[in-house]
Amino acid sequence: MRDIGWPSAIPKVDRDSIVPIYQQIYEELREAILTGTLPESTRLPPERALAERLTVNRSTVVHAYRELVADGLIEQRVGSGSRVARLTAGGQPAAADIPWWVSLPPWRVGAYPTVLGELAATFHGERISFVQGVPPVEPSPLGELAKSFERVAGDPDYVLSYGDSEGHAPLREAIAERMRRRGCVVDAREVLVLTGSTQGITLVAQSLAEPGDEIIVEAPTYPGALQIFQIAGLRALPVPVDDEGMRVDHVEAILRTRKPRFIYTMPSLHNPTGVTMNADRRERLVTLAQRARVPIVEDDPYGELVQGGPPPLVTHSPDYVVYLSTFSKTIAPSLRLGWLTAPRAIYERLLLRKQSYDMATSLYVQAGVGDYLARAYDPHVVRLREEIVARRTLARETIATAWPKSMRLANGAGGFYLWATAPRELRARALLEASERLGATFLFGEAFFATTGGDHNFRLAITTTSREQLVTGIERIGRAIEQVSAR
Amino acid sequence: MRDIGWPSAIPKVDRDSIVPIYQQIYEELREAILTGTLPESTRLPPERALAERLTVNRSTVVHAYRELVADGLIEQRVGSGSRVARLTAGGQPAAADIPWWVSLPPWRVGAYPTVLGELAATFHGERISFVQGVPPVEPSPLGELAKSFERVAGDPDYVLSYGDSEGHAPLREAIAERMRRRGCVVDAREVLVLTGSTQGITLVAQSLAEPGDEIIVEAPTYPGALQIFQIAGLRALPVPVDDEGMRVDHVEAILRTRKPRFIYTMPSLHNPTGVTMNADRRERLVTLAQRARVPIVEDDPYGELVQGGPPPLVTHSPDYVVYLSTFSKTIAPSLRLGWLTAPRAIYERLLLRKQSYDMATSLYVQAGVGDYLARAYDPHVVRLREEIVARRTLARETIATAWPKSMRLANGAGGFYLWATAPRELRARALLEASERLGATFLFGEAFFATTGGDHNFRLAITTTSREQLVTGIERIGRAIEQVSAR
Repeated sequence: MRDIGWPSAIPKVDRDSIVPIYQQIYEELREAILTGTLPESTRLPPERALAERLTVNRSTVVHAYRELVADGLIEQRVGSGSRVARLTAGGQPAAADIPWWVSLPPWRVGAYPTVLGELAATFHGERISFVQGVPPVEPSPLGELAKSFERVAGDPDYVLSYGDSEGHAPLREAIAERMRRRGCVVDAREVLVLTGSTQGITLVAQSLAEPGDEIIVEAPTYPGALQIFQIAGLRALPVPVDDEGMRVDHVEAILRTRKPRFIYTMPSLHNPTGVTMNADRRERLVTLAQRARVPIVEDDPYGELVQGGPPPLVTHSPDYVVYLSTFSKTIAPSLRLGWLTAPRAIYERLLLRKQSYDMATSLYVQAGVGDYLARAYDPHVVRLREEIVARRTLARETIATAWPKSMRLANGAGGFYLWATAPRELRARALLEASERLGATFLFGEAFFATTGGDHNFRLAITTTSREQLVTGIERIGRAIEQVSAR
Repeated sequence: MRDIGWPSAIPKVDRDSIVPIYQQIYEELREAILTGTLPESTRLPPERALAERLTVNRSTVVHAYRELVADGLIEQRVGSGSRVARLTAGGQPAAADIPWWVSLPPWRVGAYPTVLGELAATFHGERISFVQGVPPVEPSPLGELAKSFERVAGDPDYVLSYGDSEGHAPLREAIAERMRRRGCVVDAREVLVLTGSTQGITLVAQSLAEPGDEIIVEAPTYPGALQIFQIAGLRALPVPVDDEGMRVDHVEAILRTRKPRFIYTMPSLHNPTGVTMNADRRERLVTLAQRARVPIVEDDPYGELVQGGPPPLVTHSPDYVVYLSTFSKTIAPSLRLGWLTAPRAIYERLLLRKQSYDMATSLYVQAGVGDYLARAYDPHVVRLREEIVARRTLARETIATAWPKSMRLANGAGGFYLWATAPRELRARALLEASERLGATFLFGEAFFATTGGDHNFRLAITTTSREQLVTGIERIGRAIEQVSAR
């Protein structure tokens, strides 16, 4: 057995590259193994040690090693760590042993590659979870929704058809009409029905930009969008968010020297902070976009959850805004039903790619929700708004008594989330570990940042649990803060 | 007004390029306009004339011109044709007039860019349509399906959750169990639930290959797959299909000199021909794939529609086959529910990209279909098979009396489609025009070919109409054949 040991097997890492660190490690080691630089049976550095040496997260190294295992290039055994797998005499793996997937194209994943999966998954053991952004169980849309589905479930025209890939015409009209009531100038022909606004983000990432292109994002922003932009190979230029929304002056500075493909923003009830961009900044942002000829992608999943907020950005300039929204937050996420509006000139480009994702959104679901919209949606949204206000108040009051004064909350105007900032000496990852031991879990802040930031932040989704558990969970986090602070 | 006229405005077209002809025309003309080579008010060649000059389809030119209109670069008026739009004195368009979408990345579309939309759309006026591949209205799954949805519609765990992006665990297990009964060695952890097999095709096109890469496809093949491969920038190398399935000897010849990313095939009840690959070829294809280390993408939407056919390719080598299937053809297309199985080593790569399309497939639909599978699916599939056999017999008998003997049908073993070949002097496009005037429509053959072919072919979906309309529609096509032949 040969053992070249530490530190010869340490890959080089380029932090300025758009290639994720994980992938750089994987590719360097793969190359070294396939060329024989790291021969058969060579012991690789332990994951934790390599992570410390490279000053990366341990999970990054774990991920890289897991890929090498999947390729059959290294073997891992409990107790004896990771070793280069069996090779032929010539120092090359036997051809028959190299699986076809070793030569796959590069895989673009970010630091938190599975965050969309974590936001979707429901199982958290016995813990009280503040992770998922799902509507509360009460007020429940289920009774009326079930009635709507019953009305359409027997109709072969809905169930045994694909339907138009643009979306069901009456639903598109209903969506356009609702948007017009909020001040938008929109025609039903500009509405493209999607399986959710997440699909819309992928659609713009793949249709309006190419791998390597730059885009502007907020910091913090929706982590699912960051995962999507990573997969699409886009370079996210972060712009900070304060209590008045995105710092549009930063956007202006970037646009002076760069030509990003689009500006991704959530101007109303921003995820995760809950802040709403003020009217001055909205106007300024659209003007900047028009001047620089850079479109805005307005993600508005929470827009209907406040009444009387400023109208969507798209009202200022339908030609410069691709607008995305969803019924996941106002009715039910398992509908997988959302939409976008886009200028006519790029509509077909988006439509054809949408077709490639799934031909068309479920016509059965569209017909059912169309019925629900006409009958039951408006009163449900009113009750939902009240519930969210009550929960935000309850959560803030509980935090005021159960958490130390050094913890701060963003000045959100509403929505599903509270965005917390811990003092400098308290890292959110350490707090998460302690909280999970005490039976409460949340999403740590780094996932919301394209580059750096978030070490001291975390997000609580306050709609996921019962009101009682909301209080209990916040109290548990309070005890976790005490524990970690006392160390 | 300047008028440089014909032929100075004729773009060059490179037929060997992977850039679609439509896009080449668009980009050349755009360049000429933006640089001033084609100044303001220049009259462009009429669409039909330019198409003839370039020997391309008129729709190709129409598409290119439509894009230029969308960009604001040309204007079209009825009677006076297409002209270059208003420009400033310097021969450059006024900056403020150039919309942002002029500088979008290249848009990859093929000759029939909207075919997925056409396969999805339901409206055909008064015509009898043989276009869509949807299950027949009888035997109807709707009664039992509605009961299944009723059972889950009130459960917030299903409706108010996203669920695991891999798919609902009980459904994954049920799918794996059904596949095991067909001889596959598959674990539920290798099942990824999708919104349909179309989503699976996009998933492999984007995850296993990069733009510019080559892949092997059948000729003819599913036109939706061709649209997807075009959008993904892949170069499809066609391999003919005969009555015994894909010509595996052609695959072997290609693999001797090329390294395609994957082989896309529909070995059972192939769309559009209905043929099933024989056992020898199946074995040979998998052996070739393993030797060349090129994976197979097995698309199997119709596999359950015959009993006693050869087992799927994936039974031969789970490591070399990504298997795709769907409930669109056996239950209902509006479920938007399908799945893939893949080797563990590439599963996560596919999963993360699937998340980017829609986070997760509707949990409500998954739970409902899971209930339906356990209660009502098997007897429904038995009845569906009988109906299809009866319809195929009826259609063939009607054709035998209503069409001239010179028309030939592929020797399909079953499934939704008949693939017809007209004699040399009868072009399918001309036949389609005549048929539509007589009140019947179908999909013309060129859409099924990646490069050339299909001028004399067309596909009839025999499940879309009532049995009565099936007969009437075939008779109408028979009259159209007579009309066109008599010319």
